[in-house]
Amino acid sequence: MLGSTHGTLTTDSRRARAIACGERSGPTVHGRPAQVGDLDVSGRPLHADVPDLDRFFRPHSVAVIGASDTEGRPRTGITRQLADWAERVGARLYPVHPSRPAVFGIPCVPSVADLPEQVDLAVVLVGDPLPVVEELADAKARFAVVFASGFAETGPEGEAAQRRLAAAVERSGLRLLGPNTNLNAFERFRDDLQGPAIALITQSGHQGRPVFALQELGIRLSHWAPTGNEADLETADFLSYFAERPEVGAIACYLEGLKDGRSFLLAADRAARRGVPVVAVKVGRTETGARTAASHTGKLTGADAVVDAAFRQFGVIRVDGLDELQDTAALLARARPPRADGVVVYSISGGTGAHVADLATEAGLRLPVLSEARQARLHQWIPGYLNVANPVDNGGHPVGDERGRKIIDAILDDPEVGVLICPITGPFPPLSDRLVRDLVDAAERTDKLVCVVWGSPVGTEPAYREVLLGSSRVATFRTVGNCLTAVRAHLAHHRFTTAYRSPFDEAPRTPSPSYRKAQALLRPGQQLSEHAAKQLLRAYGIRVPREQLVTSAAAAVRAAGLVGYPVVMKASGARIAHKTELGLVKIGLTSASQVRDAYRELTDIARYEDVPLDGVLVCQMVEQGVETVVGVSHDDLFGPTVTVGLGGVLVEVLRDTAVGIPPFGEEQARDMLAGLRGRALLDGVRGRPPADLDALVEVVLRVQRMALELGDRLAELDINPLMVLPQGQGAVALDALAVCG
Amino acid sequence: MLGSTHGTLTTDSRRARAIACGERSGPTVHGRPAQVGDLDVSGRPLHADVPDLDRFFRPHSVAVIGASDTEGRPRTGITRQLADWAERVGARLYPVHPSRPAVFGIPCVPSVADLPEQVDLAVVLVGDPLPVVEELADAKARFAVVFASGFAETGPEGEAAQRRLAAAVERSGLRLLGPNTNLNAFERFRDDLQGPAIALITQSGHQGRPVFALQELGIRLSHWAPTGNEADLETADFLSYFAERPEVGAIACYLEGLKDGRSFLLAADRAARRGVPVVAVKVGRTETGARTAASHTGKLTGADAVVDAAFRQFGVIRVDGLDELQDTAALLARARPPRADGVVVYSISGGTGAHVADLATEAGLRLPVLSEARQARLHQWIPGYLNVANPVDNGGHPVGDERGRKIIDAILDDPEVGVLICPITGPFPPLSDRLVRDLVDAAERTDKLVCVVWGSPVGTEPAYREVLLGSSRVATFRTVGNCLTAVRAHLAHHRFTTAYRSPFDEAPRTPSPSYRKAQALLRPGQQLSEHAAKQLLRAYGIRVPREQLVTSAAAAVRAAGLVGYPVVMKASGARIAHKTELGLVKIGLTSASQVRDAYRELTDIARYEDVPLDGVLVCQMVEQGVETVVGVSHDDLFGPTVTVGLGGVLVEVLRDTAVGIPPFGEEQARDMLAGLRGRALLDGVRGRPPADLDALVEVVLRVQRMALELGDRLAELDINPLMVLPQGQGAVALDALAVCG
Repeated sequence: MLGSTHGTLTTDSRRARAIACGERSGPTVHGRPAQVGDLDVSGRPLHADVPDLDRFFRPHSVAVIGASDTEGRPRTGITRQLADWAERVGARLYPVHPSRPAVFGIPCVPSVADLPEQVDLAVVLVGDPLPVVEELADAKARFAVVFASGFAETGPEGEAAQRRLAAAVERSGLRLLGPNTNLNAFERFRDDLQGPAIALITQSGHQGRPVFALQELGIRLSHWAPTGNEADLETADFLSYFAERPEVGAIACYLEGLKDGRSFLLAADRAARRGVPVVAVKVGRTETGARTAASHTGKLTGADAVVDAAFRQFGVIRVDGLDELQDTAALLARARPPRADGVVVYSISGGTGAHVADLATEAGLRLPVLSEARQARLHQWIPGYLNVANPVDNGGHPVGDERGRKIIDAILDDPEVGVLICPITGPFPPLSDRLVRDLVDAAERTDKLVCVVWGSPVGTEPAYREVLLGSSRVATFRTVGNCLTAVRAHLAHHRFTTAYRSPFDEAPRTPSPSYRKAQALLRPGQQLSEHAAKQLLRAYGIRVPREQLVTSAAAAVRAAGLVGYPVVMKASGARIAHKTELGLVKIGLTSASQVRDAYRELTDIARYEDVPLDGVLVCQMVEQGVETVVGVSHDDLFGPTVTVGLGGVLVEVLRDTAVGIPPFGEEQARDMLAGLRGRALLDGVRGRPPADLDALVEVVLRVQRMALELGDRLAELDINPLMVLPQGQGAVALDALAVCG
Repeated sequence: MLGSTHGTLTTDSRRARAIACGERSGPTVHGRPAQVGDLDVSGRPLHADVPDLDRFFRPHSVAVIGASDTEGRPRTGITRQLADWAERVGARLYPVHPSRPAVFGIPCVPSVADLPEQVDLAVVLVGDPLPVVEELADAKARFAVVFASGFAETGPEGEAAQRRLAAAVERSGLRLLGPNTNLNAFERFRDDLQGPAIALITQSGHQGRPVFALQELGIRLSHWAPTGNEADLETADFLSYFAERPEVGAIACYLEGLKDGRSFLLAADRAARRGVPVVAVKVGRTETGARTAASHTGKLTGADAVVDAAFRQFGVIRVDGLDELQDTAALLARARPPRADGVVVYSISGGTGAHVADLATEAGLRLPVLSEARQARLHQWIPGYLNVANPVDNGGHPVGDERGRKIIDAILDDPEVGVLICPITGPFPPLSDRLVRDLVDAAERTDKLVCVVWGSPVGTEPAYREVLLGSSRVATFRTVGNCLTAVRAHLAHHRFTTAYRSPFDEAPRTPSPSYRKAQALLRPGQQLSEHAAKQLLRAYGIRVPREQLVTSAAAAVRAAGLVGYPVVMKASGARIAHKTELGLVKIGLTSASQVRDAYRELTDIARYEDVPLDGVLVCQMVEQGVETVVGVSHDDLFGPTVTVGLGGVLVEVLRDTAVGIPPFGEEQARDMLAGLRGRALLDGVRGRPPADLDALVEVVLRVQRMALELGDRLAELDINPLMVLPQGQGAVALDALAVCG
């Protein structure tokens, strides 16, 4: 994991991690030797610098290496576009070419070394960019963009070439975008649009095209960062930078993979702290997608459930379609913080209202029943037989006159209402034209969110094109589904940022007292016996049953007396899996003779099954409780992760588990439990008592601590089952499997 | 249930049901006295007549009752629209008005009685339609349309008025559309569009508007039936009629409720037999939606899971958004039967391909890896470093010349490929214009399905508006999500209709020998004791454990000897629920003394808990197996339903159950099991043996038989658990609860 982190952790800087954990070497943080306060106990950074990209997006000087004006060459089109862009942003342009005197009438500089100033931005068009990038680093250029492909996306050779490119800039102040990127950052943005903008990050230029096109519908776009292969500058850098720009209302991302999990989390944390919504499509729902994406930009896609968990913890809104990306980002960029979470559906048809209210409720939105007084007010203008409780059905006619606007204002005036959704299934100009104008006017005069769904598949109608799209205050959608997705994201984002406390602020920086005890128990490269694994848990304050490891029947009987009847007996050894299936567990033993028999039977079975034993465990029997599982795995992208789930059939058959990406706090641990499908089991079903949730949360947090402190040395941990006893009685790890790395 | 069936079951015709069941009175089938072959054993019809609606949609003569040409009155606009429509369809028009000599220059007829012929269609514009409808019935008109509202949608008084309206037509040959309907059937349809059409059924006119607007995108619409309150003609009638029309390629429905479950199933069955796809939005996912919809058209919405099950059994494709309704219906109307189920994603960008392949796989589509030979062929035109395995990434340039078309043809030529999906994220005319033309041309020359996703949110681009929408062979979508929904529905529809065998053909018509035994066990209005409920199961050939009901400790010991140790003992009585929680079950008793003690304890607890006992059950203990539940409920819309699910935690916490709507056959019962989330339990997990699926299916079918034969007299049945033993060993009902109606 650490080895895959580029630019933050380097080989010669293990000192900081050594400081943190008292023994192992650690990283630098962006070139500075790491201090204890910069790193968590696992040696991972707790802060990321925000790169200053002002001069990337608004350079004062631009060099084009390999510029051309020979008609018919692709490079000529690129040079022309860059020259136009440089003129628009007011930058001095230097075409660089060894033999051409001038390009498009602009005099050429023969080589990078001859550039008359330290340029802000150098765009490298040549096929073999490495020598040029080295020259640019020497010439103290600030930013380089490399278009050439043939790097990590093509396989091992390309990966090596990309590493050389990265190494060339790592030793300098030069920052590099690419390779395998394109012109998207230098396109012609509309500069006549007002209000908060979307900033766009894409790992495939084509995939940003629909968001870029939103400008034609009046949605402002401030930046586009096509990150390509991310040899140096990565998605996280742009995320952090955009989160600090005042004009950015929301950040839209199309992601295929991430270069480094921790950098991404730190950037998402920065956006969350500042309340800037991040909306992302992330490829990799399926194996097919993950594989194809990996071959496209040569990045790791990460296990999808882990990506989901990381997004959820840091408030990144995940969507699947580019249309959802457009619509959700556009709404979140422009909507003001919601005044209330109540949603009213308002339409000219009872059918439309019923349908949209159904879908909105299904989507988890709250549709409050309007008060009697409010309904009476609405019935001043709407016939009494129509439903105005919410959805509000006006029957059509009132929108044709001055009643229409009064109804809208009366709904928006309700303090419980934060969002009005008006679905218009199609144009019927006598009614819909006035309705649309009233909605646009009302939206100008309220802080609340007014959404219109223009349901006509045609979309060329003037009421849509001119009136709705002309308003920056009405959020216009083409489908009810996308409207509900965006509204839900808007309300959830507000709830999230309001309650957000960065887990990085509370992440442990120094090892706990448990750490030294645990070290002594590890056996590098081996699976621990159940008994040893439980001692490891005990070192971290996780309760295990009273138990003794014995190696004779007589000792077993003595142990049972100490542990207390009834007891459970289990074969114990370093490599026993599926104990129950093999008959290596005996439960409910109530007498010395049963214990003696069990000892004999267990050792017999082990002999026949060729299972080497280090003894037999005699354990206290714990019955009443809810079976759960808690474990540690390692993700390619995010390092150690903590899994919690419901045991028995739910984990075996339904994989009903939740993942936490360290660092996470208590609230996030509770959120993980809240998301389990079988959650009701913990609350108590059919008269069973509620389980001790606090104890379960505590175990999850202690396991996180263990995962962070032990790092790769704890390759795998699986507590199964962790029996969660009734409220106030704690949780006990009945069995555990631990594999040392 | 039977009482709510209008027009098929009448009070004075219970004779048929009496024939069917040998005792109870039965219905008529569309006026004819029912014959045994017309009805299943529950007395429900097995066939529905298809009303001949030719003269409704293409009348030779039309009367407009309450016609007007006074400017400013709503009725005037309606009269004008009807006059225009009558002219278009070539019908003679008769305005009917007692005092006006003429309307729009057409001479008026003073009353219905004065009409010069038996009109095909009479449109009733007057506010109190009942007398007019009675006159029309006397005048032998074929069809009447009633626009007036204020009927079942307004409450009990309106319901009564609607019943009077229904009664007026039931006694005649007149069929009525409405009340509370509108002009949608008489709108101006485009008649210049070719190919298979969509026929549309809506229970709210506004909700059909987007589908109607599809005509502007070149999709043909043949009919629109706005069914209103369905006092007489209902959704099912139009469904059956449209399914038989040669020009109809697909039927699109917006449904809020159904008038009668059985009629709907019979109509859906007709469509399924003929292979005509039915795509439906059905409101009622949530309580809010169901309540609002009910108040809109006064229909029953039905339990949503039951509606889902009914749709699935009869191949009705359920979608949620009107945009999905449009896109799915349009594709299914026009696409030819798929030649193969393999889907290829083809794009000019690796990112787009990765993303769409990811979503397509997630949607359950099969993306075959193209053969080496096929890939080699594609690499003739596509650079070697690009991925052409599927998704096929051409890198952009090849679409600019003749290679583009060759690539498309080479993909379509692959026998594994049935569908090509080409996502185009935005217009880049030098490439996308030619790509679009090539796709349109290629689609003209293949039977295979070519889909394009035009991802630009703008949608005014010529390549989209003129080229793509101008083709009836390319299916064009605006979002990847809708494209995948439609393609999946298309492939699933084909699989469904290919394998479809109507369950009505095999539905039981006469009672089984079990029926007479079962009758003797029923206790009207009472809950049966566990023992009696199990006898009922035994009557239907469902296995129960060996057991004896005893009333003394001594008898218990004798019974245990006969049943065989170990035994289970349970308190038995007519009204015991939650036996386990009350401590009224003792398991694993292995000796006479344990049985004696258990008898005493059970009777003690029952005394303290005031539970009246009819004795204690001594039962054979059955341990190894998978716990399932099988039950019978009654749905407002569909009558008796059979539920099957996985027992224990899965049913208690996750409600992991599937519903079957009788009649269903063995295949459908297997489909129910296949849909369970915990299905893997039945297949055997962690070394457990696979369960006896055949036995479980057999129990489900026997319970269906019981539900059909006993009807309302079996108000509720709950076998919990039904222990499904390992393959070949059967299934045993360990406990059962039965409530008689």
